[in-house]
Amino acid sequence: MFKEMRRQDKKLDHTEAIDIIESGKYGILSTAGSNGYAYGVPMSYAYVNNCICFHCAVEGHKLDNIEQNDRVSFCVVGDTAILPESFSVRYKSVILFGRALEVFGEEKRTALEAIIAKYSPDYIKEGSEYIKNSSGDTRLFKIEIEHMTGKAGR
Amino acid sequence: MFKEMRRQDKKLDHTEAIDIIESGKYGILSTAGSNGYAYGVPMSYAYVNNCICFHCAVEGHKLDNIEQNDRVSFCVVGDTAILPESFSVRYKSVILFGRALEVFGEEKRTALEAIIAKYSPDYIKEGSEYIKNSSGDTRLFKIEIEHMTGKAGR
Repeated sequence: MFKEMRRQDKKLDHTEAIDIIESGKYGILSTAGSNGYAYGVPMSYAYVNNCICFHCAVEGHKLDNIEQNDRVSFCVVGDTAILPESFSVRYKSVILFGRALEVFGEEKRTALEAIIAKYSPDYIKEGSEYIKNSSGDTRLFKIEIEHMTGKAGR
Repeated sequence: MFKEMRRQDKKLDHTEAIDIIESGKYGILSTAGSNGYAYGVPMSYAYVNNCICFHCAVEGHKLDNIEQNDRVSFCVVGDTAILPESFSVRYKSVILFGRALEVFGEEKRTALEAIIAKYSPDYIKEGSEYIKNSSGDTRLFKIEIEHMTGKAGR
């Protein structure tokens, strides 16, 4: 179903891949568009229970795409180094695949709290209030990771 | 064909969008996969004549996808700032759409030279040699930009 990496020598192990995900500030969510064009957009996220969780407004391009096709990809890029003398760029990155599924209720609250804990660790209490007040304006999706590849290479 | 941004107040003008593209170290190429899953992967690139040019090995996942569906998206993220107290992240980013088209001959050489000039400005001469020697191992694609949106916002 999912292709193996062509260059196995560049593959990172599971722990290294999770480390890139946990330390990433944002990832790019790629969806297949109803107009035939793929669509990639930067998203804040938290990693919770083997899922990528992200929140968004109640409507928009990516939601239209997900409604039509929930099979998505998420890419987090870690350290990047340009190597001018060897005409290449070295990336650490993780690419994962899964289905984007909307979550509600307790699971939604837990995921939003994880996002607050990641991005606003000094504002946990205010964040809880914020979640309560904005919950109706926010949708929460999780990507259950079906396949993941970490790569360090050019 | 392409959706307008939902939040027009966050839209960047053309010059600002080009500036993000020109100063970006890498972008994420999103393609629609033959297995139904979108696929996003970080790529080095150069911006030449209203096109995003990128090179790659002669085979691989993204090439399989492009052969099946050449309608792609490319996302470059600029400055990113976490705003902990307002529970948001501010991105500057550009998302563009177009068809990925393989180029050959003189056009391929020009694009490879633009990539060398961007990433290896102190190695232009060596880069020309490198292009000559590696041309058979490298494919070069351009995305002719059909639609582009720059965004500064949360």
